[in-house]
Amino acid sequence: MQDTLSPFAPQRREEARAEKRAAVLRAAVRMFNDHGFHQTSLDDVAARLGISKPTIYHYLGNKDQVLLECVVIGLEQLLGAARQSGAEPGTGADRLKYFLRCYARIIMDDYGRCIIRTAEEMLSEGSRQRFRALKREINEAMLELIEKGVADGSVNAPKPKLLAFALAGALNWPARWHDPEGAEPPEKLASDLVDLLAQGFEPHRR
Amino acid sequence: MQDTLSPFAPQRREEARAEKRAAVLRAAVRMFNDHGFHQTSLDDVAARLGISKPTIYHYLGNKDQVLLECVVIGLEQLLGAARQSGAEPGTGADRLKYFLRCYARIIMDDYGRCIIRTAEEMLSEGSRQRFRALKREINEAMLELIEKGVADGSVNAPKPKLLAFALAGALNWPARWHDPEGAEPPEKLASDLVDLLAQGFEPHRR
Repeated sequence: MQDTLSPFAPQRREEARAEKRAAVLRAAVRMFNDHGFHQTSLDDVAARLGISKPTIYHYLGNKDQVLLECVVIGLEQLLGAARQSGAEPGTGADRLKYFLRCYARIIMDDYGRCIIRTAEEMLSEGSRQRFRALKREINEAMLELIEKGVADGSVNAPKPKLLAFALAGALNWPARWHDPEGAEPPEKLASDLVDLLAQGFEPHRR
Repeated sequence: MQDTLSPFAPQRREEARAEKRAAVLRAAVRMFNDHGFHQTSLDDVAARLGISKPTIYHYLGNKDQVLLECVVIGLEQLLGAARQSGAEPGTGADRLKYFLRCYARIIMDDYGRCIIRTAEEMLSEGSRQRFRALKREINEAMLELIEKGVADGSVNAPKPKLLAFALAGALNWPARWHDPEGAEPPEKLASDLVDLLAQGFEPHRR
């Protein structure tokens, strides 16, 4: 009988592999965010972790694939938040605000920050298509939440698309100026920012 | 007597030099914006203009100095707009909206776009200090306009600093998504965006 606690058991091996892969990704995304994608080589990431560059290739592929994986994780966190928000109780405005708070917190975290710091031209042509398609899905999810709020009268938005861009801009920007080590906790900042933005779209706030 | 129309006259030579310098800068900023700073070499810029790389060094210096000059031009346009806005007639909210419209238009133009597309880590240590100091001045100018609006009762902002960051974020973002060749003229987009944002800070809009 096989010991499932042994790292050589197939299940443990699979888990250990996933853990190592996650650790490599986390180190890479932090170095990309802190030093810039072009200023960070996979050699730097490998050195930080005390592993070899071929080990990174083995787990994640080349540098373009590593960056794509980082932004895809962030974008999927945002998509997950949009889906979850659609199922929240309350009015359309409540669901929109719930989403915006999640959005702000994700953007201030490692993978979300990486979305904002990644200009499309950093990615290969194929990866860029994927990046664009996912960003488009998130814009559409944001727009849908706004439009449902307009439909139930809880959101005032004569130009829903413009509101979506303005909200995204206001919430994306902390990826450039918020200091993750700073005094203001991301949860508090997310909630303060969304309260402020809601003054612009909630008809009965004042 | 010297012919002042001759390109060899000192005054014409000075003008011609300034014109050439401006043309080189304009070509550089557009290529940085379109293809990315790291993907653009001064060789590419020289080739685009049919001049030699030493000519670029002669007019502008090395690549770091070229990028610094591009972002400084954009930042000085923003500072100029802030100064001008402070002298406009009307309420504090009117002056703030005047500034925000200028801000949005500048950000959608070549040098403004470059500010947003430039991550600090692209610049050398010295240039980064300058970039940061100018950005800080603009944040302070925005904050001052907000605070004067709060003082005369035309702006509702319980958290002026947070409002400044949210407004800047919403107006910076078009540098990433607005297509300068697209159908929507920047003036119209700037004015629509500012109208939308003003709904959030003008107490008597509704």
